[in-house]
Amino acid sequence: MYCLVKSAPLFLAVAVCNGWLFGDFVGKQKELDEIALWPLPQKFQSSAIAFQLSPTRFQIVQAKQSSAGPSCSMLENAFRRYFEYIFGDLKKPEKSRKKVYDSDLVELQVWVTSADPECDGFPSLQTDESYELSVDEPSAVLKAANVWGDDYGTEISDFPRFAHRGILLDSSRHFLPLKVILANLEAMAMNKFNVFHWHIVDDHLFPYMSRTFPELSQKGAYHPFTHVYTPSDVKMVIEFARIKDLLTPCYSGSSPSGTFGPVNPILNSSYDFMTQFFKEISTVFPDAYIHLGGDEVDFSCWESNPDIQKCMVQQGFGTDYSKLESFYIQRLLDIVAATKKDYMVWQEVFDNGVKLKDDTVVEVWMGNKMEEELQNVTGAGFTTILSAPWYLDYISYGQDWQHYYKVEPLNFPCTDAQKKLVIGGETCLWGEYVDATNLTPRLWPRASAVAERLWSDKSMTDVDNAYNHLVQHRCRMVKRGIPAEPLFVGHCRQEYKGL
Amino acid sequence: MYCLVKSAPLFLAVAVCNGWLFGDFVGKQKELDEIALWPLPQKFQSSAIAFQLSPTRFQIVQAKQSSAGPSCSMLENAFRRYFEYIFGDLKKPEKSRKKVYDSDLVELQVWVTSADPECDGFPSLQTDESYELSVDEPSAVLKAANVWGDDYGTEISDFPRFAHRGILLDSSRHFLPLKVILANLEAMAMNKFNVFHWHIVDDHLFPYMSRTFPELSQKGAYHPFTHVYTPSDVKMVIEFARIKDLLTPCYSGSSPSGTFGPVNPILNSSYDFMTQFFKEISTVFPDAYIHLGGDEVDFSCWESNPDIQKCMVQQGFGTDYSKLESFYIQRLLDIVAATKKDYMVWQEVFDNGVKLKDDTVVEVWMGNKMEEELQNVTGAGFTTILSAPWYLDYISYGQDWQHYYKVEPLNFPCTDAQKKLVIGGETCLWGEYVDATNLTPRLWPRASAVAERLWSDKSMTDVDNAYNHLVQHRCRMVKRGIPAEPLFVGHCRQEYKGL
Repeated sequence: MYCLVKSAPLFLAVAVCNGWLFGDFVGKQKELDEIALWPLPQKFQSSAIAFQLSPTRFQIVQAKQSSAGPSCSMLENAFRRYFEYIFGDLKKPEKSRKKVYDSDLVELQVWVTSADPECDGFPSLQTDESYELSVDEPSAVLKAANVWGDDYGTEISDFPRFAHRGILLDSSRHFLPLKVILANLEAMAMNKFNVFHWHIVDDHLFPYMSRTFPELSQKGAYHPFTHVYTPSDVKMVIEFARIKDLLTPCYSGSSPSGTFGPVNPILNSSYDFMTQFFKEISTVFPDAYIHLGGDEVDFSCWESNPDIQKCMVQQGFGTDYSKLESFYIQRLLDIVAATKKDYMVWQEVFDNGVKLKDDTVVEVWMGNKMEEELQNVTGAGFTTILSAPWYLDYISYGQDWQHYYKVEPLNFPCTDAQKKLVIGGETCLWGEYVDATNLTPRLWPRASAVAERLWSDKSMTDVDNAYNHLVQHRCRMVKRGIPAEPLFVGHCRQEYKGL
Repeated sequence: MYCLVKSAPLFLAVAVCNGWLFGDFVGKQKELDEIALWPLPQKFQSSAIAFQLSPTRFQIVQAKQSSAGPSCSMLENAFRRYFEYIFGDLKKPEKSRKKVYDSDLVELQVWVTSADPECDGFPSLQTDESYELSVDEPSAVLKAANVWGDDYGTEISDFPRFAHRGILLDSSRHFLPLKVILANLEAMAMNKFNVFHWHIVDDHLFPYMSRTFPELSQKGAYHPFTHVYTPSDVKMVIEFARIKDLLTPCYSGSSPSGTFGPVNPILNSSYDFMTQFFKEISTVFPDAYIHLGGDEVDFSCWESNPDIQKCMVQQGFGTDYSKLESFYIQRLLDIVAATKKDYMVWQEVFDNGVKLKDDTVVEVWMGNKMEEELQNVTGAGFTTILSAPWYLDYISYGQDWQHYYKVEPLNFPCTDAQKKLVIGGETCLWGEYVDATNLTPRLWPRASAVAERLWSDKSMTDVDNAYNHLVQHRCRMVKRGIPAEPLFVGHCRQEYKGL
């Protein structure tokens, strides 16, 4: 399931350090390093002036010219949140500070320029996320086309390199409490990720509570009281294997083995189910995209089932079960297309020759022949996102974030038109070995490396420089209560206080 | 620094599930799996009787015959703690439970048999940790030689296979808050580890606050207010590289480079420092052992220093800097020996031919030629502990705990006398990439695999069986608030509630 992140509007995380907004960084790499904006803005310049931010005088306000007013609750909430980020940890009274600043900065005006500020809407991949920030006394001005613009710094003109900057989390292998998901949405916001790919459905579990099929909720694999996602969370947990008419019964020799494989593709009831189910899904989720999967289908259960064997013969598929898969996916895609949603699929669906709508997004996830696949998918005119180099569930000793950082998504032989079809990427933290106990430190700051690759300019390739910035960015996440793990030896001014 | 764990007295974690003590497990592997004691006791048997534990009637008491009385505060604290473990999460009132039990278990009598219960003492490697537990109505009896005995189950006679069962944590690379250390001591207790090897001192930091050398505390590498271990914690942080007269100044060509290497072995002042320092250490730490390190000494700084080059010639060491290292270590060992402490050293100290006291413990940590090293060390008559196969800082995808579990410490060609010299092992979680954000889930339940290897019988080698037990043991840790990471897909009745 794709959810474009709604919790990441208009970041006001200006580069402050205990309440001071620093200037004086023009051409001074060392001091620029001390700000260590992450992901680095496209254009960044600062003046020689240092401004003081006082919690008693400074405020964040709607600019008079802004199309968004006080009724834009999303912005008002963001103002409060970022005021807290800036001043929340100020312990010492202002007077004890000895440093002399040139002048006071009394307000940050937020100016939304487009006629529709999209206060109540959802972002899409077409959303203009650019912004400009200008800091001068007595007011700083943050200008953005809509509430999805984003900022950081002292004199910044910024925009994302790629429109799609995603993270996949997997609640099908382990139950992820809402608290953990929400905390990581906040960390995503800090890293300018804009797409949360919520992997809800898989062989192991089907943790979406359907109103159309409510009886399924009583058969949850998890404990029915302690391990459910409530309906208001738009999720709940059922055991997929027990939806028996939907799944293929596997056989051991001539009799059913009692286990179940993928969806049974030869029953009309399967497609009736999907039709009703996706009709519900399309109303519950506001997102433009539904990710239909289609990767790593295991054919052994289909092969064991005599009814399916018969159908293979009737359809003239021989023993090529990928033809049956294509047949199934094709009908599924038609069902989803009828809901007016666009869809994303894993690369196998394209590789297997399923006929796809022109605007389908194909996700390239296989590490071998990645460049060849990007060539083929974009060569066929399809939009693509890349996740192959960014499977964070594969862990190893040392600074693997450097590998993620060094990836150049457009480094494959292609035309300019093909390059434009690569709209971004996503990093995947699959859940086989991940749950609430270890998800957050395993994800951060490793995912931050992907964040800068997908947002910042292509020229950002210096790993040593990135290290210096990322160390500080990681400390900022820790300061906000996110247990991002250390890059290497060292310390933050404020360490993580939890377990 | 070695600290024999004081926080692990007399575990009363009887196998209860929401307050019920189950019996009826004789010869029934499936139900035995459901108890999943970890590490598995040496002898375990249960009756066909199921006892009820009621929070209003059940109590843990000192047996009349016990040498420990109500004044043994360590035991009294343990009673309270385990009562909370057993009944702390009972939400439902007792009456709503429908299962019928044969009878009530009203008390657990704890009977310490030896004349000195060691209520105020510290455990040593000679401590008798065996215990017997017998459950029958109306009282269960837990019998142990002293307060360090340990239990679990319904009819158990248990003792550790190895005396030394350790975990190394590293606060020299990252600051570890006391809260994290204490929480992991509790997890160690649940896993019957009995030695906490506290790696305080290394190149990066020297986080012990000395009273003899108090001026060093002002030069801390961490923030002086937020990142200090208080003196009462017996630790504080200073920047080792600034103890300039103690460390060797490195040279770049003919002039000092401004950096510092290992301790300067050619100055008497270095040995004066060590003499005073270890005199203090020996009084602050009650432990019998001090671990002196001696691994991975980098000779390049010594090689660059002209004074040291001169000394090499004078001593007739040629260019063999390991001879200089031995010379230094030899004097250091003499200094420590004078404090009446025993010492442990990494294997290089032995390998380099330093003359060691007969009762020195040599730690074998290098993965290559591990068996050969064990042969050599024990062949020379030295006691040894093994850590080579259990470096948990090396992470990888998948169930690496299985590798730790499969290790057999005594699987090297040797005599019975040599086998007896292998007194145990320890698992090491070095701190380059570990701090409070990720330490606990990275350590548990991977370290639990080592725990069973070091406590339970040699015959416990079935990894599938261990998996079934460990999954449940991990859930018990999670239930007690320890964020132990998942072994694979699945869930616990009570998941981790934190981030």
